[in-house]
Amino acid sequence: MKTTSVLELLKGEKLLQEVTIKGWVRTFRANRFIALNDGSTINNIQCVVDFENTDETTLKRITTGAAICLKGVLAESQGKGQKVEVQVSSIEILGDSDPETYPIQPKKHSFEFLRDNAHLRTRTNTFSAVMRLRSSLSFAIHQYFNQNGFYYMHTPIITGSDAEGAGEMFQVTGLDVKNPPLTEDGNVDYSQDFFGKETNLTVSGQLEAETFAMSLGKVYTFGPTFRAENSNTSRHLSEFWMIEPEVAFMDLDGNMDLAEDFLKSVLGYVLENNADDLAFLEQRLIQEDKSKPQNERNEMTLTEKLRFVVDNNFKRVSYTEAIDILKNCKPNKKKKFNYLIEEWGADLQSEHERFLVEKHFKCPVILFDYPANIKAFYMRLNEDGKTVRAMDILFPGIGEMVGGSQREERLDILKQKMAALDIDEKELWWYTDLRKYGTAVHSGFGLGFERLVMFATGMSNIRDVIPYPRTPQNASF
Amino acid sequence: MKTTSVLELLKGEKLLQEVTIKGWVRTFRANRFIALNDGSTINNIQCVVDFENTDETTLKRITTGAAICLKGVLAESQGKGQKVEVQVSSIEILGDSDPETYPIQPKKHSFEFLRDNAHLRTRTNTFSAVMRLRSSLSFAIHQYFNQNGFYYMHTPIITGSDAEGAGEMFQVTGLDVKNPPLTEDGNVDYSQDFFGKETNLTVSGQLEAETFAMSLGKVYTFGPTFRAENSNTSRHLSEFWMIEPEVAFMDLDGNMDLAEDFLKSVLGYVLENNADDLAFLEQRLIQEDKSKPQNERNEMTLTEKLRFVVDNNFKRVSYTEAIDILKNCKPNKKKKFNYLIEEWGADLQSEHERFLVEKHFKCPVILFDYPANIKAFYMRLNEDGKTVRAMDILFPGIGEMVGGSQREERLDILKQKMAALDIDEKELWWYTDLRKYGTAVHSGFGLGFERLVMFATGMSNIRDVIPYPRTPQNASF
Repeated sequence: MKTTSVLELLKGEKLLQEVTIKGWVRTFRANRFIALNDGSTINNIQCVVDFENTDETTLKRITTGAAICLKGVLAESQGKGQKVEVQVSSIEILGDSDPETYPIQPKKHSFEFLRDNAHLRTRTNTFSAVMRLRSSLSFAIHQYFNQNGFYYMHTPIITGSDAEGAGEMFQVTGLDVKNPPLTEDGNVDYSQDFFGKETNLTVSGQLEAETFAMSLGKVYTFGPTFRAENSNTSRHLSEFWMIEPEVAFMDLDGNMDLAEDFLKSVLGYVLENNADDLAFLEQRLIQEDKSKPQNERNEMTLTEKLRFVVDNNFKRVSYTEAIDILKNCKPNKKKKFNYLIEEWGADLQSEHERFLVEKHFKCPVILFDYPANIKAFYMRLNEDGKTVRAMDILFPGIGEMVGGSQREERLDILKQKMAALDIDEKELWWYTDLRKYGTAVHSGFGLGFERLVMFATGMSNIRDVIPYPRTPQNASF
Repeated sequence: MKTTSVLELLKGEKLLQEVTIKGWVRTFRANRFIALNDGSTINNIQCVVDFENTDETTLKRITTGAAICLKGVLAESQGKGQKVEVQVSSIEILGDSDPETYPIQPKKHSFEFLRDNAHLRTRTNTFSAVMRLRSSLSFAIHQYFNQNGFYYMHTPIITGSDAEGAGEMFQVTGLDVKNPPLTEDGNVDYSQDFFGKETNLTVSGQLEAETFAMSLGKVYTFGPTFRAENSNTSRHLSEFWMIEPEVAFMDLDGNMDLAEDFLKSVLGYVLENNADDLAFLEQRLIQEDKSKPQNERNEMTLTEKLRFVVDNNFKRVSYTEAIDILKNCKPNKKKKFNYLIEEWGADLQSEHERFLVEKHFKCPVILFDYPANIKAFYMRLNEDGKTVRAMDILFPGIGEMVGGSQREERLDILKQKMAALDIDEKELWWYTDLRKYGTAVHSGFGLGFERLVMFATGMSNIRDVIPYPRTPQNASF
């Protein structure tokens, strides 16, 4: 007989029917009640065992983590806590789980312990909810772009160019590192490497995405990117996924419209489609807050935070205006900020971004027109000669969620900026070609996917929102 | 005024309305007719210029590749070849394109030339069609899995394990390759590398996907994978994208059902959603065939090939049965095969696979139960002790499209096979853990995405179905 998923069973449509279920035991109590989960939902189905007519050996093998197959009838539940339950008529043990050694016991484990057992951590409620939400957000992203006329583009992972300068890069090589071939002057001879030159892991697909935008119009990337920075924090990964839309004929205002609509849409999607997972994670945070001092507790519940983004218009404020607000705000005057804002040109820290969002404007904020010298070479210079058409979108709790810009489409100005920053024009000949042949206004933004997953799940360590995190000293599994 | 896309204009719903269009000039003939494209569709919109009232300087700047903005009225076309056209009232040149130097002239370019200009090749019909189809297939894949209860999982790209043995790996390092730190015995000291050990680029996400399947039930990966093999062929890339579903409680029969349904669904999606791109590529192939000798021409048109998959039941044949057929078939007896099939145990080549599909069964074929010694360690051993529950799906023209298997879920047998192949159990402790705690039957398959794009577009070189191909000696752009 065909297996029915727990998700399907809990809908209750198969009431009074014979069903077959396969899943893993979460708990087994009173020799009678199995809470069974198969990953299709965070919820378990209660399965009631007729223990008087079940042999002792089988009962003993119904332990936490064991894989079992049950047959029985779906019935209205007499107990509290669930509408339906399965009255079990037969039990087959598929795979045992030794309760003496099984790491995932039915108790609270620390996230550190679960990171060491990341191959099993999705067997817990928290991590299964996080990974289902991650999956849902991914789908929402693809669906959003598909419905809005964007084409998905796979930008290269291995890159021969290190011109973008977004961060430290990992080297990729086919050479024997112990005995690399050398040139006459004693340097590594990369002409003998696999690709005939030195290669690295990409830090961004933006420049390549621009090439496709200038032909296909509206494109986006969604792929892995890398940073070889030795940052051991709860906000950095060496390998993470990034989303980068790029649109021809769109200016910075259009870029803001796109980003706001995009963020509202994908977060709205999970509010609608992942209610059970969100409810669980929301309760988890409420419980966690109880053990924290008052001033460290969340001011909004998880759902409230998501609603804060979905229901509010994003406030658009120039960098210059923001600096004025920050210079004159209480925490700056009373020296409560770790980094005091003293003058125009300062780079904003997370504490400033959060102040603007959470205290001052009380809505998501888009800052724009940043000082040119704190932003990347490809951003379009304003007429004032000192600011660029950049934007950052700021969210509560997390600070910067999106960074984007209108791109410099004027060949002469782009070349000047590249020269000033010592970026080799020969390496980016194909990038400058876009300004030579049919150049046009175009814009795009980048969104670190794990940041978004953290925001949507309330998880506070980025290692806990990706299946197998890569960080300094750690490439396990 | 808001810009309208060419796709939207060609629907004709804005007839007699004022419109603004932005795009790139494909051709400009008789000083009058601009064929404009904005990437939203393969089709151009014809824009009719009132050349008598347009200044000469502007007319001269309407060259192939130039970006322009037009305003005008959408009207029924008086000419042949299009239903609607734009009667232009104003022209603005956004970005010039010097006809003397612009590489993409309105003529036929060789694919080799276009690979050298890959940053501009999506400005041609062929490559824009290919990349739109690639995007559509990607979306169809995500949608299929989403609608069927699968969770999307991002498996790690950088891996500390080289145990799977699917192919040669690229090394990833943060060390100074010129002066790497050495251990006392003169080897490279990888404990000082970024991750504290030697790391590589992944060749497959399957093993990690199994960990999620054994908790979330139904999962899939869709991400980049790598091979450091020095294969300079039209069928190999050093970096390519792979799809790998993995399902708990599913046996090989279920795996075949899933793969067949999946392939029919995603190819059906593009037949329905990419008719214009497919029609263009189909004509391209028909033209190309005309210059080929009769025996090298395609027996089916592109659409017929897609229909061949979507409309036929896949024939399921055991490896043993297939060997019997091949041993006794004409091309084998007449020694027409490059590799003659002499006995059970032979690895099948593309010529054999294509014979089975195209000549013998005349439908897609699923071969199953392969000899254990030509397949990977994780495949489930049959009771006969010499075959494993593996399957390959064979397509016309291309041979193997999918490779999959039921996984060995029995700890003792898995360990025996690992030992026999010298695979370090300590490295894969987390993989064997899945068999220790709640093991269950499970299965999955792998599909090289570029293979699928080649099949769906009729392109014969894999370098032409990915934005920026990485191959030996080439990591350009």
